[in-house]
Amino acid sequence: MAVVTFLSDYGLDDDFVGVCHGVIARIAPHARIIDITHGIARHDVRAGALMLRRSLAYMPAGVHLAVVDPEVGAERRAVAVCCAGDEERVLVGPDNGLLSLAAAGLGGAVEAVEIGRSPLCLEPVSASFHGRDVFAPVAAHLAAGTATLAEAGEPLDPAELVVLELPRARVTAGGLVAHALHADRYGNVMLDAEHADLAASGLRRGRAVTVNGRAALYATTFADVPAGGLVLYQDGYRVLSLAVNRGSALDALGLEIDDEIVLVPM
Amino acid sequence: MAVVTFLSDYGLDDDFVGVCHGVIARIAPHARIIDITHGIARHDVRAGALMLRRSLAYMPAGVHLAVVDPEVGAERRAVAVCCAGDEERVLVGPDNGLLSLAAAGLGGAVEAVEIGRSPLCLEPVSASFHGRDVFAPVAAHLAAGTATLAEAGEPLDPAELVVLELPRARVTAGGLVAHALHADRYGNVMLDAEHADLAASGLRRGRAVTVNGRAALYATTFADVPAGGLVLYQDGYRVLSLAVNRGSALDALGLEIDDEIVLVPM
Amino acid sequence: MAVVTFLSDYGLDDDFVGVCHGVIARIAPHARIIDITHGIARHDVRAGALMLRRSLAYMPAGVHLAVVDPEVGAERRAVAVCCAGDEERVLVGPDNGLLSLAAAGLGGAVEAVEIGRSPLCLEPVSASFHGRDVFAPVAAHLAAGTATLAEAGEPLDPAELVVLELPRARVTAGGLVAHALHADRYGNVMLDAEHADLAASGLRRGRAVTVNGRAALYATTFADVPAGGLVLYQDGYRVLSLAVNRGSALDALGLEIDDEIVLVPM
Repeated sequence: MAVVTFLSDYGLDDDFVGVCHGVIARIAPHARIIDITHGIARHDVRAGALMLRRSLAYMPAGVHLAVVDPEVGAERRAVAVCCAGDEERVLVGPDNGLLSLAAAGLGGAVEAVEIGRSPLCLEPVSASFHGRDVFAPVAAHLAAGTATLAEAGEPLDPAELVVLELPRARVTAGGLVAHALHADRYGNVMLDAEHADLAASGLRRGRAVTVNGRAALYATTFADVPAGGLVLYQDGYRVLSLAVNRGSALDALGLEIDDEIVLVPM
Repeated sequence: MAVVTFLSDYGLDDDFVGVCHGVIARIAPHARIIDITHGIARHDVRAGALMLRRSLAYMPAGVHLAVVDPEVGAERRAVAVCCAGDEERVLVGPDNGLLSLAAAGLGGAVEAVEIGRSPLCLEPVSASFHGRDVFAPVAAHLAAGTATLAEAGEPLDPAELVVLELPRARVTAGGLVAHALHADRYGNVMLDAEHADLAASGLRRGRAVTVNGRAALYATTFADVPAGGLVLYQDGYRVLSLAVNRGSALDALGLEIDDEIVLVPM
Repeated sequence: MAVVTFLSDYGLDDDFVGVCHGVIARIAPHARIIDITHGIARHDVRAGALMLRRSLAYMPAGVHLAVVDPEVGAERRAVAVCCAGDEERVLVGPDNGLLSLAAAGLGGAVEAVEIGRSPLCLEPVSASFHGRDVFAPVAAHLAAGTATLAEAGEPLDPAELVVLELPRARVTAGGLVAHALHADRYGNVMLDAEHADLAASGLRRGRAVTVNGRAALYATTFADVPAGGLVLYQDGYRVLSLAVNRGSALDALGLEIDDEIVLVPM
């Protein structure tokens, strides 16, 4: 069954998501639409990119529509991107980095087209609602098989696609210097450290660690520390994260996004 | 594929929307349900009517269920309304004006039935949840083809349906007097002016205009004015609207719904 | 058509619900997923249990997935429970009482399996996201028919399942002593009285009643009392409830959950 997944910052208070569903259903009546989330903070391209990357592994192969688009109506390109990998997956959205982490996670972009003037668009294309007029109809035609990627737009060198630059954790003599990649609404902070970084820097599950000089435990769950305690743990997606049990790690550590976080094993 | 679209003010915190989906799925297992939105402000019939009108053009033909129903349990009628137009579309909901703008946009109501005592209702019909007991089952049977409109209720003269009265913009010697029809959560204000009104009153894209005496630009997007600047523009649905770039036009102009807005070209 | 209904406290701001949908769709591409709600207050097992019980009567038979799971990663069991009754219905979720009211409403649990180490789980099972790794894949396989209940886990005596204990209203010489079971976001309070209790305690629709000494009307709808008035009524699910017209009964009566409420007919 043809699948279109859909992630955006549209929220559910208005009819924007519903209208995109309608557009897809008119073009691809048999496609299944899976809403990943529409709760991305408004215009937060990085949060959208991170959430798209982590969720796609759990989604059926298909067309992956994503719209977090602060520059809609300006110069940014609109694109459809076919990824390497065993399953055929196409990403559709603005070329502002939103798709780049997911594409890298799917083996990299192998083919891309610029769809801003695609013959598949709903005409006239509005200045502000490209989700409805550009992205949803292109995604729907690709899912339904009523257009190929080549028919959806002008060819584009995948090497020219905008890549979201993230900070990179580094192993030091004393431990690990990571960064605050993202914070969720509870103040849990996602770090950029990989599993190999942890091993190389001497961090071990069950051991004490200092985080920017503050005592913490590298544990399995929040519940391993008392209320108010700081914990380093792998979140539900196995990403190294910081939390305060029944509190906010973001506030407790006075962090902002991209701030350095120095982790020293005890 | 049979389609039921669904718009309401139920919100998503409770199980009201889910229960209506369940009722529809039991009766019409193969119908596709498209949620337009359930984020209409509670009991705001006009906002629901405006959003239903603008979204239906993007929806597949089918049964269009809408519930914003402040008078549930009181005297208002419950109705199903078949519209003129090439595609067969039936509106189902309370007869309080909610459906009237959409019906007019679809060529007008050509056939209507009163469904408050429809044999298709779930009995016993509760005093407060007609979405579940009256509207959803009728919509589902119509979508599934297990009942015709005539079988769904008592015939009703379409001319007797409640019509939502909206203010009407008028061209004057000096410009245009429009009205604030609706404001979204960002304070962007939808006006009631048609494209013909704009031309007749000398308003031109790219030109300065005063809005209740305040300087503004008739532009294409927010980004055409600096932060805090007032802009007259066509929104994503091509409706003339007022916005303040990174602010609230509603607050900046001290507007309330239905207030007059005097537009004078400079 | 195979149906999976889904209730949780995940909210819609994150990708948790969407990821569970993806997991189900990969395993059971043709199953229909009906979201009952994801707006249960975080970790409020009782609210989830009450809402699951009342909504299932309106859902197609199928697999009923529910996740409100404050003890995820700790000792609580994960279970799948087959219920008695004419329709085949299986409940899947944590064994913390969440499923117990629904099971009782469906004729009682007749077969149960422990699924925490089910071969159907997504491995490695994370410490915190059993919705994705345990509950959704088991629900999907059961719905798709790619596993039987016996294949989904280790047999468990249904009598050992955790049962949510609720207070029980009692008829007294002077009237009825009920309890505050749950309050919705408007401050309407659901009571634990059954219809038989009402008759036995002399409470009659249309008559005056005192509620913890305060005058109220046992009426059909809010609109039967003036603004600020206290009303005893049957809610949309025919559950005896307290409301203040355009106000909060919870606040007006200074109630907390499980508080006693003395109803005396006048």
